[in-house]
Amino acid sequence: MRSRLSRENKQDKERGTIVKTAILGFGVVGSGVWKVITENQEILSKKLGDPIEIAHVLDLRDFEGHPVQSVLTKEIQDILSDDQVEVVVECMGGLHPAYDFVRASLEAGKSVATSNKELVAAKGAELHRIAAEHHADFYYEASVGGGIPVIRALRESMAQEQILEIQGILNGTTNYILTRMENEGLTYEEVLKDAQELGYAERNPAADVEGYDACRKIAILASMAYGATVRYEEIPTEGITKITIEDIQKAKAEGKKIRLIARAKMIDGVVYAKVSPMHIDEEHPLASVKGVYNGVLLRGNMVDDIMLQGKGAGSEATASAVVSDVLTALKNRRLGIYETMIWEDTPFTVKESL
Amino acid sequence: MRSRLSRENKQDKERGTIVKTAILGFGVVGSGVWKVITENQEILSKKLGDPIEIAHVLDLRDFEGHPVQSVLTKEIQDILSDDQVEVVVECMGGLHPAYDFVRASLEAGKSVATSNKELVAAKGAELHRIAAEHHADFYYEASVGGGIPVIRALRESMAQEQILEIQGILNGTTNYILTRMENEGLTYEEVLKDAQELGYAERNPAADVEGYDACRKIAILASMAYGATVRYEEIPTEGITKITIEDIQKAKAEGKKIRLIARAKMIDGVVYAKVSPMHIDEEHPLASVKGVYNGVLLRGNMVDDIMLQGKGAGSEATASAVVSDVLTALKNRRLGIYETMIWEDTPFTVKESL
Repeated sequence: MRSRLSRENKQDKERGTIVKTAILGFGVVGSGVWKVITENQEILSKKLGDPIEIAHVLDLRDFEGHPVQSVLTKEIQDILSDDQVEVVVECMGGLHPAYDFVRASLEAGKSVATSNKELVAAKGAELHRIAAEHHADFYYEASVGGGIPVIRALRESMAQEQILEIQGILNGTTNYILTRMENEGLTYEEVLKDAQELGYAERNPAADVEGYDACRKIAILASMAYGATVRYEEIPTEGITKITIEDIQKAKAEGKKIRLIARAKMIDGVVYAKVSPMHIDEEHPLASVKGVYNGVLLRGNMVDDIMLQGKGAGSEATASAVVSDVLTALKNRRLGIYETMIWEDTPFTVKESL
Repeated sequence: MRSRLSRENKQDKERGTIVKTAILGFGVVGSGVWKVITENQEILSKKLGDPIEIAHVLDLRDFEGHPVQSVLTKEIQDILSDDQVEVVVECMGGLHPAYDFVRASLEAGKSVATSNKELVAAKGAELHRIAAEHHADFYYEASVGGGIPVIRALRESMAQEQILEIQGILNGTTNYILTRMENEGLTYEEVLKDAQELGYAERNPAADVEGYDACRKIAILASMAYGATVRYEEIPTEGITKITIEDIQKAKAEGKKIRLIARAKMIDGVVYAKVSPMHIDEEHPLASVKGVYNGVLLRGNMVDDIMLQGKGAGSEATASAVVSDVLTALKNRRLGIYETMIWEDTPFTVKESL
């Protein structure tokens, strides 16, 4: 893996230039990005040296009464053809048209910050390559762990480490369900129904409860840590739908908790990974990750265990991570540099982790 | 506060240049830096593009039989006058001569990575200014929380946030003592004696048990978060020497734990800070920080709580944080950029936090 800022003289920006950004998708995360940039404008412009303007928001819906209405567009071309837009924020989710729009943005020389785990897990290596070819940044802090700065921790804080193992509670919905089953003695079906009513679970909860969401997230972390694509399709994945109250009570009697743990490690060039419910000790650092929170344990060969914990989802927390990427990308452009954190396109062999 | 990379054309380095560093002080942390750079050389040179050489180690002692012996020097001038040394690692601790050597290194245009909390708490603003004047970096990830990447989290991951509050268990020795008093019903004196024998506490434990160490660390975090010097001398500080078993048992009966908490927040331009034993709820995120571990809770106005946890001390963990700074500083120099994370020299008014 190479994690490296590269220097590009042509793009060196002078201060005083208008700093324009665009948001793709004005849903939960996209509207959060609007809020963070608007409400923390003073902090951002102090850090950057100039105010940040959201020049365009792409969404097919109307938002009458919201100030976003005046910059709404239904045409990606309006953004691609605006040479002043330096960073495109992608919060649409799903693979299409997100992939097409992100790719086109990078090809237009714009940097991209995305919260889209499906996109990064499926196309990360390719988008990194396209970004580098066009001297732009491709950042995705919000794609794993919401507001938790795990991507930057892997990219920068642990750049000097050999990553021995990654373990994470990377899905808040399933952790919420398991925590409530444990604390209140309710069945999986009872808690799921309640979680759906409270908005913590989707009407179609498969992506969460079957472990698919956590699977994409651990694939992203492992790809970063080991420097080549870890194909999420190859990670053995089991969700929490078969967990019974009896399982949880039996574990409890043994001083254990059942948590949906996504994990990965590399041994002799082979990545061992898995997503499945695990019995973890009450002393395990991830045991304290409760409810909708996420937690990630990064084990380095020198630093040992680092644990990061925080809101793994939610509009403002996720948007905050997106905006941290926007700020970094804008700073990079003003210095005429860009980051090339390259996962090789050749995928790893993935085997089932124990 | 401005956190900003700046561009310096003259220092732009080409790849292929020999990358030389120097270490000041070959004690616990300094020898750890040697180990991390030596054992993780392959990872580091992959990230940087060239191998990193430790060209000089300053220490008044001899280390016969250790490979460091061949690069040992007793004269700082050997390092200052070696134009090929790009980054100086300071792990001497204490204010003098560390301050003088760091200052001279920066004035010679070298970047500095330090693990020295006394130095950063007392002279951070000034050293930031001198670094910027000489287009060099001044980094200190290892000065707070050992291997936990809290400095980078504040500087980068939370650059878009208004920091509402910082709370931390920032001293492993006191946390170890409190944890054992709680779990084993031992007195303060009994555990302290044991900790001293095990090497977890100094023979003169005042810096730890009186809270002075935690006080300097929260001063550094608050200075970074709020952009001007928070003078550690003004932070009300109380240690753990008066905590009795009865206090701990009474707290336990109320579902609480006693922990030495360092905290800071800013309200209307005034910094409220304090270091003292606090009763924290068992559900409090810091309650899961056990033994010699450290934990920091950063509360942003958008992202809410982020908790970071890991080894707050120890040779390799602390050295790992130092080397992450070395790597960043070297990358910056090769791009011809440097970071100016400036705390204003004018100190804040500090009041006692509740």
